[in-house]
Amino acid sequence: MTADFRYYFEDFEPGHMMEIEGPTLTEAEIVEFASKFDPQPFHVDAEKAKRSIYHGIIASGWHTAAVCMRMICDAYLLDAASMGSSGVDQLRWLHPVRPGDKLAMRMTVLETKTSTTRPTMGIVRHRWDVFNQNQELVMEMTGVGLYRRRNPGAPAAA
Amino acid sequence: MTADFRYYFEDFEPGHMMEIEGPTLTEAEIVEFASKFDPQPFHVDAEKAKRSIYHGIIASGWHTAAVCMRMICDAYLLDAASMGSSGVDQLRWLHPVRPGDKLAMRMTVLETKTSTTRPTMGIVRHRWDVFNQNQELVMEMTGVGLYRRRNPGAPAAA
Repeated sequence: MTADFRYYFEDFEPGHMMEIEGPTLTEAEIVEFASKFDPQPFHVDAEKAKRSIYHGIIASGWHTAAVCMRMICDAYLLDAASMGSSGVDQLRWLHPVRPGDKLAMRMTVLETKTSTTRPTMGIVRHRWDVFNQNQELVMEMTGVGLYRRRNPGAPAAA
Repeated sequence: MTADFRYYFEDFEPGHMMEIEGPTLTEAEIVEFASKFDPQPFHVDAEKAKRSIYHGIIASGWHTAAVCMRMICDAYLLDAASMGSSGVDQLRWLHPVRPGDKLAMRMTVLETKTSTTRPTMGIVRHRWDVFNQNQELVMEMTGVGLYRRRNPGAPAAA
């Protein structure tokens, strides 16, 4: 080990919640991301977006997800002995994210288990609920985070 | 309706596959995306990445997903009467994507059904398998696309 971290596998306990503040998305940021990665008219063209079923520019769902990843990084992941992730499940875009919306997130630890194949690794299933400034749920997802164990030899906490 | 599209709901049939060529990712692009959205050391710092479990810089999984969204846009979505998406399931990052990797994708239509609440809309469940230049499966996901029906009054094709 070359560095010490604040969070190891053992620091994530089922039921633990963390409230995370996020940024306000500007129209320029929304259009810039979507122009590169998701140039559908309702993400990049204000006039066409007005005439679409969304009645105005909305953020690409992948932009919202990427911004949430940055919120996760800043809140705990960059201080954690992270070993990456194998994926996410049930990523849901429930409500449009519009220019001027300010995001906030609640992270919940759903379950944890030690890896059967890598004794130095633990697996944490997280849930992330993402809200706008009106407390509307705009996105939710569950997914797995892989973390180094602080005490690889010890039995997992119950 | 203000525009005609090449693809409507009726044009997606279960079992239909489409092979889609993608771009080669450069280290500069990988680091630029991750610096904004996912600044974990193995995404942004070549030296630290070398010493990580990945033995070198790898793309953020969200970057890979965003690039795939662009591939989907260019291959069919911008020519489709798209009404957005409610989300994706089982997004899996199976193999690291590294600088110099060239992506390719296979889209498969899994199932289709008309909306019970919106008679003008159809729901298509897609699967996207993403490969690198060595035919290694690097990412897979399934998800829903919402499309306008060409003939809203007609019964759905069996």
